[in-house]
Amino acid sequence: MTVAEIGNTYVKLCKEGKFEDCLTELFSKDAVSVEAWTPPGVDRVASGIGAIRAKGKAWADDHEVHKMEVSGPYPNDQRFAVRFSFEVTNKPSKKRITMDEIGLFTVENGKIVREEFFYTGG
Amino acid sequence: MTVAEIGNTYVKLCKEGKFEDCLTELFSKDAVSVEAWTPPGVDRVASGIGAIRAKGKAWADDHEVHKMEVSGPYPNDQRFAVRFSFEVTNKPSKKRITMDEIGLFTVENGKIVREEFFYTGG
Repeated sequence: MTVAEIGNTYVKLCKEGKFEDCLTELFSKDAVSVEAWTPPGVDRVASGIGAIRAKGKAWADDHEVHKMEVSGPYPNDQRFAVRFSFEVTNKPSKKRITMDEIGLFTVENGKIVREEFFYTGG
Repeated sequence: MTVAEIGNTYVKLCKEGKFEDCLTELFSKDAVSVEAWTPPGVDRVASGIGAIRAKGKAWADDHEVHKMEVSGPYPNDQRFAVRFSFEVTNKPSKKRITMDEIGLFTVENGKIVREEFFYTGG
């Protein structure tokens, strides 16, 4: 798949809530995921598809999603950006929050090898 | 200025339409600007503040801006992203178009050294 095709598939699967399929179909086994911010003691970088899957599961377990908007992809060469806007309740704190962020995805040999999330955290 | 301060100033100046001030105040003289797409024969990369200023002027001369939305900044470490949505008329073609794109800005030593624009072009 081209970068544009991967980006379009990524956005389509996200809109359908198929985050697991995104990882399985589109990501390299060695992909790296980089957060803008993490709590003290938590690494900003998750390395490998297993660590990324675990991070996604932990997030899904902790949040009830009320609304989700996914816009894009916005391609440039071997990368594409995606905009996410989520309205969620964090289950442990019971706080309802809006998450507005940009994801940046780098493609090599037809697979996503790096995802980076941009947002104001902390 | 920190990356967050540079990002906030960038967005503030853009919202005020002060694109020239953005370049003068926030960009390194050696900054590089990368488009997602350019017409045949036009380089995707503009190197140096003079070339970036000329590119901005050429765009401003060719477009009437009806509406502009600038969202962000979305920081991650030494970079920040910005979302742009413009409704413009391209003067030569008289076509009214919506431009929806993501800008990614890299900061070094308190100045923006690289801007990259992500969108579907062509």
